[in-house]
Amino acid sequence: MTVYNFSAGPAMLPAAVMQRAQAEFCDYKGCGNGIVELSHRGALFTEVIERAEQNFRDIMNISDDYAVCFIQGGASMQFAMLAMNLLEAGKSADYADTGVWSAKAFKEAKLFGDAKLVCSSKETKYDHIPALNTWTRNPNASYLHITSNNTVAGTQYAKFPEVLPNVPMIADMSSDIMSRKINVNDFGMIYAGAQKNLGPSGVALVIIRKDLAERTPASVPTMLRYSTYINEKSLFNTPPTFAIYMLALVTDWVKEIGGLDALEVINNKKAAKLYSYLDANSFYTSPVALDSRSKMNVVFRTPSEELDAAFVKAAAKEQLTGLKGHRLVGGIRASIYNAMPEAGIDKLISFMDNFARQNG
Amino acid sequence: MTVYNFSAGPAMLPAAVMQRAQAEFCDYKGCGNGIVELSHRGALFTEVIERAEQNFRDIMNISDDYAVCFIQGGASMQFAMLAMNLLEAGKSADYADTGVWSAKAFKEAKLFGDAKLVCSSKETKYDHIPALNTWTRNPNASYLHITSNNTVAGTQYAKFPEVLPNVPMIADMSSDIMSRKINVNDFGMIYAGAQKNLGPSGVALVIIRKDLAERTPASVPTMLRYSTYINEKSLFNTPPTFAIYMLALVTDWVKEIGGLDALEVINNKKAAKLYSYLDANSFYTSPVALDSRSKMNVVFRTPSEELDAAFVKAAAKEQLTGLKGHRLVGGIRASIYNAMPEAGIDKLISFMDNFARQNG
Repeated sequence: MTVYNFSAGPAMLPAAVMQRAQAEFCDYKGCGNGIVELSHRGALFTEVIERAEQNFRDIMNISDDYAVCFIQGGASMQFAMLAMNLLEAGKSADYADTGVWSAKAFKEAKLFGDAKLVCSSKETKYDHIPALNTWTRNPNASYLHITSNNTVAGTQYAKFPEVLPNVPMIADMSSDIMSRKINVNDFGMIYAGAQKNLGPSGVALVIIRKDLAERTPASVPTMLRYSTYINEKSLFNTPPTFAIYMLALVTDWVKEIGGLDALEVINNKKAAKLYSYLDANSFYTSPVALDSRSKMNVVFRTPSEELDAAFVKAAAKEQLTGLKGHRLVGGIRASIYNAMPEAGIDKLISFMDNFARQNG
Repeated sequence: MTVYNFSAGPAMLPAAVMQRAQAEFCDYKGCGNGIVELSHRGALFTEVIERAEQNFRDIMNISDDYAVCFIQGGASMQFAMLAMNLLEAGKSADYADTGVWSAKAFKEAKLFGDAKLVCSSKETKYDHIPALNTWTRNPNASYLHITSNNTVAGTQYAKFPEVLPNVPMIADMSSDIMSRKINVNDFGMIYAGAQKNLGPSGVALVIIRKDLAERTPASVPTMLRYSTYINEKSLFNTPPTFAIYMLALVTDWVKEIGGLDALEVINNKKAAKLYSYLDANSFYTSPVALDSRSKMNVVFRTPSEELDAAFVKAAAKEQLTGLKGHRLVGGIRASIYNAMPEAGIDKLISFMDNFARQNG
């Protein structure tokens, strides 16, 4: 029986990817060893990491002036690393405070220089993305940092901020990378922990305009310099080979199913179905502003905390797992990343309907 | 047909571990998802990370005043992180220069303070561990850093330096961790990239005396502070769940086969067989001093570079792979970590003997 896992990450991976990884786990391409046992400098892994990079370039239309890097430590390491590398001496950096993870990124940046908030929805529990025309931006900032999708609160940018001529935009896209078409050229850097739309945990994708890596002060250690990953093609030291292999398989899958054109259509359809149901049924409420709703993390509540808990428990018995809201906010959260099939949404809605009738 | 992979890392893993990971890859304990798809905060993964930690404590006899942490970035990240956290202001740190990786650790430390060499075998191409009684140590150093086994040159400490009362000893044990009995209490910190004796790449094991983590200056970012991993039990952010799962399986296996008592006997026997053969056959030479020979990485040469290359190529055809020496030094290297069965050594010696007769 299929289990639909709505976990926010690590999350469901495409069934075809899981089956392929399992089939070749102990004997990769007939070499007699698994991919996890092979040298990162050998021909078999070289093909894997090059394919992963090329797949990202193809799928996201990434031009040659950007590097595609695979870095350990997740998005949380990037919070510190990006400020360490890119916050120029004597300048400030702009941060949009749209959720728990934005706030963490801001906190780390303050260790390295003058980080300033351009907006915040903290007072209303991060229930919306502040209107872009209300932001107090600095046209001389070292960069602007945003979080494109907020996993905990369930909000997402429907439109990105204007690109100012001298202010590279840096986006944490951990929870909506490769879920919709974006223009990479609008960004100085895009980063994402892999464990939502890309693969297993243990690697972050970093897409960075190469010239920005020249900003790094001499005091930054080798493993925390973007130039190390750019110059050595993420092979300065042993990379997380299994995680990168899984990125290659997941991106193979994305190409097979039709790339971002296809995924965007499917993701829009999945989210629309779920939100339509939420809006039509008064038993459930969504705490998120209409124009800020996330298509990746759909957050909602029943009439009480007790019923929220009962919902999560009963759903798990019906093979609908991982629906508990983030420990900081409670409630219910359905994370519906690329690998969640539409059938999972249908089954969830059907369960929600039964649960509402029995408890409403 | 069994392929014996002598790669220096990522390296062979125990066949039983690989088969178990494959069997449960898509459906972990009947939950309907693979371990890579599960939340790091759920009950199933919690059991895995706690088991991995407890296994290390049991196998290495680690007491409660030490923390066992799982950190991304490999040993190379630790080179910077340990200096960032533990090199006290106004003090110097002592470094033993016994190989390429020692030198890299030293280089990163110099970014954070006064790092000094207490010895070096660089002039003789790191062919030995300098005699301990020749080292110029500082009794007031913040710490002493050593590399217990040198993967590239093929040397290993037969005996560790004396522990000075106020100088914690920090050891990079990436390539011989859990291969022999050691006294953890002799060290302030032990760290090891997993991809040799412990599991796949993508995680480093860090065993640190908890009081040392209090040294960390306030300027160090969250993800680079040892206290973050100690206080949050390596779950401050999403850890590399698959790599940690594999550590749990590998340490389960170590316990099953009898722990370090058994492994040390097997490893001594494997290394003795190979070195005995090398010493008995004049076709092969070992560049390493007798008292510094590594039991993990056995480095040797044929009479010429051409024959070295022919050896590596012919061996691969006989299912003996990964024997090429490190790109910095050339020659031949047989890495014989815990997962390499004695039968692999026997087959290698048999091949060496044939090759010597045909080309001698």
